[in-house]
Amino acid sequence: MTPLHPSPEQFRLEEVLAAFGHPVRAAIVRALAPGEEMFCGAIVPGVPKSTLTNHWRVLRESGVIYQRPSGRKLYITLRRGDLDARFPGLLDLVLSEESFGQAA
Amino acid sequence: MTPLHPSPEQFRLEEVLAAFGHPVRAAIVRALAPGEEMFCGAIVPGVPKSTLTNHWRVLRESGVIYQRPSGRKLYITLRRGDLDARFPGLLDLVLSEESFGQAA
Repeated sequence: MTPLHPSPEQFRLEEVLAAFGHPVRAAIVRALAPGEEMFCGAIVPGVPKSTLTNHWRVLRESGVIYQRPSGRKLYITLRRGDLDARFPGLLDLVLSEESFGQAA
Repeated sequence: MTPLHPSPEQFRLEEVLAAFGHPVRAAIVRALAPGEEMFCGAIVPGVPKSTLTNHWRVLRESGVIYQRPSGRKLYITLRRGDLDARFPGLLDLVLSEESFGQAA
């Protein structure tokens, strides 16, 4: 079953900022920034799966990522187009800060 | 005693984003955006003082606000110059989203 994702008009800036505002989630955003879909287990390999479960939820519910289930696996993409359309410049600004996503 | 404030080179983007990423803190940033120093009790009058204590700490430790004690009162300013120097465009981008700080 595909989990629920907000539509861009449902995005709230505070929620997106809060999603970006954690070292592990920042590392996930950084890893997904090139744009390719990734297997969820390959994105931040050092972080335990149980820790990640909550982070996937925060990222998905705020609109930052898209989760595609395939069998028992989850594949993740950054919703760059939707984020750029809704909050122009935000993702580029955040990714332009070199330290962003390097501390996890 | 003046509480501890980070210097701009100590600011971390994830911490600033996390500070912005809460409805009450967003409302505080919005209220302080015009630039004037404000008495802490006048910024978000509907929010209980005990709730605010934690928010002042998060905002101060991330570098978003400056707290000036005067007798038993605290006066607050937005560190716009330091934020703009460290993360150019971020504060303007966040404030340009009309809904930011309206939900508290």
